[in-house]
Amino acid sequence: MMTVFQNKYGYFDEEGKEYVITRPDTPRPWVNVICPGDYGLVISQTGGGYSWKTHASLNRITRWEQDLIRDDWGKYVYLRDDNTGYFWSLTWKPVCQNPEFYQVHHGIGYSKFISRNYGIRSQLTIFIPKDDPVEIWWVELTNESNQEKTLSLFTYLEWGLGVAPDSHREFHKIFIETEFDGKLNTLLSRKRFWELPNEKGQHWNRDWEYVAFHSVNEPVVSFEGDKENFLGMYGSLQAPAAIKKGRLTNSCGKWGDAIGSLHNQVKISPGESIQLVYLLGAVKKEEMTRLEELILKYQNLKTVEKAFTEVKRFWNQLLSTLEVKTPDVGFNLMNNVWLKYQAISGRIWGRTGYYQAGGAYGFRDQLQDSQIFLLIDPDKTAEQIKLHAAHQFPEGRVNHWWHPLSEIGAENNISDNLLWLPFVTIKYLKETGNFDFLDEKVPYKNGEEATIYQHCCQAIEYSLSKRSKRGLPLIGDGDWNDGMNAVGFAGKGESIWLGHFLYGILKDFTIVAEKYDDVNRAARYRKEAKNLKKAINDYGWNGEWYIRAVCDDGYVMGSKECKEGKIFLNAQTWAILNDVADEERAKKVFRSVEKYLIREYGPILFYPAYKKPYPNIGYLSRYAPGVRENGGLYTHAATWAVLAACKLGYGEKAYRILKSFLPPYRGQNPDLYKVEPYVTPGNVDGPDSPNFGRGGWSWYTGSAAWTFLVAIEGILGIKAEWDGLRIEPAIPTEWEEFFVSRQYRGATYQIYFKKIQKEEAGIYIDGERLKGNVIFPHGDGKIHKVEVFFK
Amino acid sequence: MMTVFQNKYGYFDEEGKEYVITRPDTPRPWVNVICPGDYGLVISQTGGGYSWKTHASLNRITRWEQDLIRDDWGKYVYLRDDNTGYFWSLTWKPVCQNPEFYQVHHGIGYSKFISRNYGIRSQLTIFIPKDDPVEIWWVELTNESNQEKTLSLFTYLEWGLGVAPDSHREFHKIFIETEFDGKLNTLLSRKRFWELPNEKGQHWNRDWEYVAFHSVNEPVVSFEGDKENFLGMYGSLQAPAAIKKGRLTNSCGKWGDAIGSLHNQVKISPGESIQLVYLLGAVKKEEMTRLEELILKYQNLKTVEKAFTEVKRFWNQLLSTLEVKTPDVGFNLMNNVWLKYQAISGRIWGRTGYYQAGGAYGFRDQLQDSQIFLLIDPDKTAEQIKLHAAHQFPEGRVNHWWHPLSEIGAENNISDNLLWLPFVTIKYLKETGNFDFLDEKVPYKNGEEATIYQHCCQAIEYSLSKRSKRGLPLIGDGDWNDGMNAVGFAGKGESIWLGHFLYGILKDFTIVAEKYDDVNRAARYRKEAKNLKKAINDYGWNGEWYIRAVCDDGYVMGSKECKEGKIFLNAQTWAILNDVADEERAKKVFRSVEKYLIREYGPILFYPAYKKPYPNIGYLSRYAPGVRENGGLYTHAATWAVLAACKLGYGEKAYRILKSFLPPYRGQNPDLYKVEPYVTPGNVDGPDSPNFGRGGWSWYTGSAAWTFLVAIEGILGIKAEWDGLRIEPAIPTEWEEFFVSRQYRGATYQIYFKKIQKEEAGIYIDGERLKGNVIFPHGDGKIHKVEVFFK
Repeated sequence: MMTVFQNKYGYFDEEGKEYVITRPDTPRPWVNVICPGDYGLVISQTGGGYSWKTHASLNRITRWEQDLIRDDWGKYVYLRDDNTGYFWSLTWKPVCQNPEFYQVHHGIGYSKFISRNYGIRSQLTIFIPKDDPVEIWWVELTNESNQEKTLSLFTYLEWGLGVAPDSHREFHKIFIETEFDGKLNTLLSRKRFWELPNEKGQHWNRDWEYVAFHSVNEPVVSFEGDKENFLGMYGSLQAPAAIKKGRLTNSCGKWGDAIGSLHNQVKISPGESIQLVYLLGAVKKEEMTRLEELILKYQNLKTVEKAFTEVKRFWNQLLSTLEVKTPDVGFNLMNNVWLKYQAISGRIWGRTGYYQAGGAYGFRDQLQDSQIFLLIDPDKTAEQIKLHAAHQFPEGRVNHWWHPLSEIGAENNISDNLLWLPFVTIKYLKETGNFDFLDEKVPYKNGEEATIYQHCCQAIEYSLSKRSKRGLPLIGDGDWNDGMNAVGFAGKGESIWLGHFLYGILKDFTIVAEKYDDVNRAARYRKEAKNLKKAINDYGWNGEWYIRAVCDDGYVMGSKECKEGKIFLNAQTWAILNDVADEERAKKVFRSVEKYLIREYGPILFYPAYKKPYPNIGYLSRYAPGVRENGGLYTHAATWAVLAACKLGYGEKAYRILKSFLPPYRGQNPDLYKVEPYVTPGNVDGPDSPNFGRGGWSWYTGSAAWTFLVAIEGILGIKAEWDGLRIEPAIPTEWEEFFVSRQYRGATYQIYFKKIQKEEAGIYIDGERLKGNVIFPHGDGKIHKVEVFFK
Repeated sequence: MMTVFQNKYGYFDEEGKEYVITRPDTPRPWVNVICPGDYGLVISQTGGGYSWKTHASLNRITRWEQDLIRDDWGKYVYLRDDNTGYFWSLTWKPVCQNPEFYQVHHGIGYSKFISRNYGIRSQLTIFIPKDDPVEIWWVELTNESNQEKTLSLFTYLEWGLGVAPDSHREFHKIFIETEFDGKLNTLLSRKRFWELPNEKGQHWNRDWEYVAFHSVNEPVVSFEGDKENFLGMYGSLQAPAAIKKGRLTNSCGKWGDAIGSLHNQVKISPGESIQLVYLLGAVKKEEMTRLEELILKYQNLKTVEKAFTEVKRFWNQLLSTLEVKTPDVGFNLMNNVWLKYQAISGRIWGRTGYYQAGGAYGFRDQLQDSQIFLLIDPDKTAEQIKLHAAHQFPEGRVNHWWHPLSEIGAENNISDNLLWLPFVTIKYLKETGNFDFLDEKVPYKNGEEATIYQHCCQAIEYSLSKRSKRGLPLIGDGDWNDGMNAVGFAGKGESIWLGHFLYGILKDFTIVAEKYDDVNRAARYRKEAKNLKKAINDYGWNGEWYIRAVCDDGYVMGSKECKEGKIFLNAQTWAILNDVADEERAKKVFRSVEKYLIREYGPILFYPAYKKPYPNIGYLSRYAPGVRENGGLYTHAATWAVLAACKLGYGEKAYRILKSFLPPYRGQNPDLYKVEPYVTPGNVDGPDSPNFGRGGWSWYTGSAAWTFLVAIEGILGIKAEWDGLRIEPAIPTEWEEFFVSRQYRGATYQIYFKKIQKEEAGIYIDGERLKGNVIFPHGDGKIHKVEVFFK
């Protein structure tokens, strides 16, 4: 197999669809988040406290309410040679036996742990079938020694069955009941207590509405439902008493500390292989028939194999709707595979990661993430817009985040959330041209019905109503940056970035309103946009860049006079992106960005970092300097610097900026970068941190969708606009040719870009020369060949 | 040394002031909760995940807001033989080296870990000086080998500096900053973030207002502020990389995962001993001078020794105000030492334990606990009454619990809370005769001032206003039993127990009102009491016992017709205690209690346990059957059965009941009982649990004060009443003589009880025969000898 981006810990396969880890000691747990729809789990390669944990979003119910497994523990499979008593685990943790061979394959929709210990090769494949609420742990053991082996397998997991992290397990554990169903060869676990209020609104008086199960397709020798029995008093997962002894006590019930462990024994001749299939899942309490069916279904190895093939096919199909082929292998594999997978599996469906538990929908977060679907399946973007619209109050403001099922939600005065609703709606309309969507009805939080159009208008109106005397938007409890939570707490602080953002939306929504025949509104928004632009340029321009915000007390953030927080990225990039700055000013702005913010490992959020707390700014200034929003690279915002460079036609620069933080490249220096080379991290320490270049909080970050978008819309320059697909690449000079296949309004465009020397530049569709650079939609379900000749 | 109550894991010293654990594998962590006033910690003998953890209540600030150490980790001292590289820990955890010798002494105000490994005897004494916010870890090492030893000591702790448990450590850790102050030889730790709102009411924008410190009295060789450096990547506390290596990296700052570790090196000749003193503490940020003074102060070994002596003297003095000497050694040591210590250190000052984090004041909880002070220092009971009165709303209802400092409090409709305010006030008045207390002013929660008398009246009035048409108290969201949270949710359910309770208060408060010249109220309460008594006997009497409650839907709990929850303890004991039942009925009631509820290990809360959830009852029925309130022995309630037996004059029975759940006796069967033999557990599994007899949730339970009270007031029969001290013992037949020393209204009574055969029974004070059995207070500051001759 050809491999790419080999580093000391692993490599990608040639197509980039698998990342293979070759040793257990990666500098951080390198994780896979598997969620092919309704049910998700987080798999750490080896190293964290656990091997993998289940963050169920069973039937779209998120883990916050329904975590099968205790948050701080994982799931393990132990193997024991019953002749010698030696034992190890199929993942490196928890036994931490030094394996003779070790590999973890993180693939799209699965992870595979392969190792060899004491002559036994083991392969543990973990995946979730597309439409069934079960995790499958598919084990293959091969005897590579020359003696017959008698091996015991023991699984281990700790039942949680509710809110995670569990803040009071001594209390909660009293409500869990485990049972071994001999007929089904299955451990069952129920909880007679759920944190959610019952139908009367009473707390602590409701069953957890599911039954969790753990089964294996071979008869068990013994089983265990109690943690102390398994570990032994004061015992450890590294060397549990039960494994040393080689037998479980067959205890279950209501009175223990609920775990699940199944014990199987197998004999394997030299050269022989055997397979076992474990299931972990949950169904509604009343669906015991379904549970039985699930267990029977996956007892069949062929069914398991088929389900595995299907889930891989599902992902391949989903991700292949857009394909790129450029001279940059890292760019290709991120855009073809991992960015989409990360955004969909980790952010939209799973809503969880290793560093942040999540489970909730962030109003602005998943809306932005759902842009990933614009180029894949825009109906899913529409779904997401509707879900978020339903979390808007009639006056226009919205929940900052909410947990589905419980519908517990945060209300605050963060001022940008609501505007992402029109923002993403506009993008959806540009992608699909489906203006009927504006008439779809979704209730506000109070149940009152409204059209999507009305929802968007209310968001804009609410924002317009919250402005300072100078006509600038009030920042409230923060805008894009949650950490600027004191800037406008008293109701005076203004945000320049929010001005840029609102300005762009007003401009675009003017067109929406016109198309909607809402001419008065269109006229009003056009006027508001004009005034806003003037106000920003009058009060927000600092000579070389835009300031970021003005605090309640008049302190100006992001100004030349500041010793810390002198210049902020978002206030510049969005001035360029939304044409708040005229061309000359935009170029000046970009020069300032380059001067202060574009660093070795990507564009940092601002500079210099705050070294001490500024109570008038907020908790942003309380982070360690250079970390996260405090002057680190915040990947989400960094992507907009790429887009801004593209907007200015700086293809070479745009590409260099993107590459400077693109994971496969950063992963070439893994002991500095630390995090996964295949997914974007939330942040990378900036120059004011002694760990400049260290990645953090990977997987569950809003940067994957945006990194993808700036690559496709910005660098490759294929961008949906009101009337068609604009082709306007901004690429590095060394690229001679590249290819993109993209769906657009019911047709597929296979776009071949080719650098030419002497011939005339131009675009040809199906051999015909195009006037300008906008492809008008064919909508004919066919494949169209587009040739782009550029100089 | 004489030892008593030896079991396989340990014993008491003769006076019962120390419990000595002799091996590390007690069936549960046997714990000490040390809190001599303002600052507390929980010490586990060995076995939990940690050795000891700090639950700071520094300056009366509770751990919820200000836990120095992460909740799930402890503190350790590692020892390493630098010649051989062998290492172990001064506590058994975390290295779990099998020691040559091992003892833990849990004393009053300190714990001592003594062990011997590789020829080194170590003694680690942990205590908190009475008035300084520091933990002292006093280490003595003795070389019992015949070679000089070069030893390294390494401490380990993980900084928390805020709310515990920390629900998102990946976030919180970014705000902690560590520093090594070379001049002070001290690690400092600060946090630039606190969960509490700042003075403007803003969240997440406030410094943690303290600086934590960790120092040692000898120069350090190296230090560490980062967890990964200490443990090594994927390392463990059992074998940290730093200990294996024998050196720390001298890293501190804002960018790590904040821990504290200090490394010292010592050379010890054969036979020689050396001592080191470690400090862990915190002061207000601005009190750096005080910090310096504290560090300097305790660098002196003599000061440490003196502080240790002082804290022991403090406790001895506090606990010696009441002394008993009976033929029952277990009864003596619990009443002389441990019950008082548990109530004061664990419940009132520390408000924490091993199984429940706590930190909050429970309205009814600490009020009842503060009864412990009636016989020790009644001013402290008065203080507690005033604190709770300040958590009452003007209409009479109260916070169910609240966290000091943040003043976050629960509001609910639990119906008994507020009545404990007059209940304990009445007891305080009977103890002290200090009716001026009723005029002391304490504001309601809204700031409105009111006298204690008014507070009490409002509580009673509010209760009187919440009654059913039948004149019975509405149970609301539960009464004594939080788990009966659905019984009266809809506003109809009635409580018989609450009726008994209210009846007693009305009767007593009639007298208070009369003494307060509030004659109309007195008359009204007298009438209400009479009506209430009638209503209870009309509607609550079931022929052989009192029912417990009537649910919203009319379902009767605790009735003969019930298959589960047939008879409840509290509904019977309080009928006897408060004379709701006439004498004949009371005796019948007690027979029913004996028949159904008095079991091998004490009186269970009700019988039979609920086997399945009853949504009309609440989460009580969701617990595992026989566990906690679901038909287990709930120690708090069990004590009242002892008191009821005393009330009926059943001395022998009362004593047998008490003994059946008294920890030293239960501790004779430690592998069944599991919990500590020296403190009361919250509960013991009842007969419907397969673990019948298993104790749970020790230390932080409201049972210690009540166990003490029923022993003193009930069994020994020395009870403060309105006008004096009534002497009315209810003792077992085998007791021939016993002695009690008790303070009462400014005088000390040394009471000698003696069984006589032929002579006339009677009481003599200072040699003079008393009429009746009530000692009228002398108030002369003198010691009075009381002789009680009984038959």
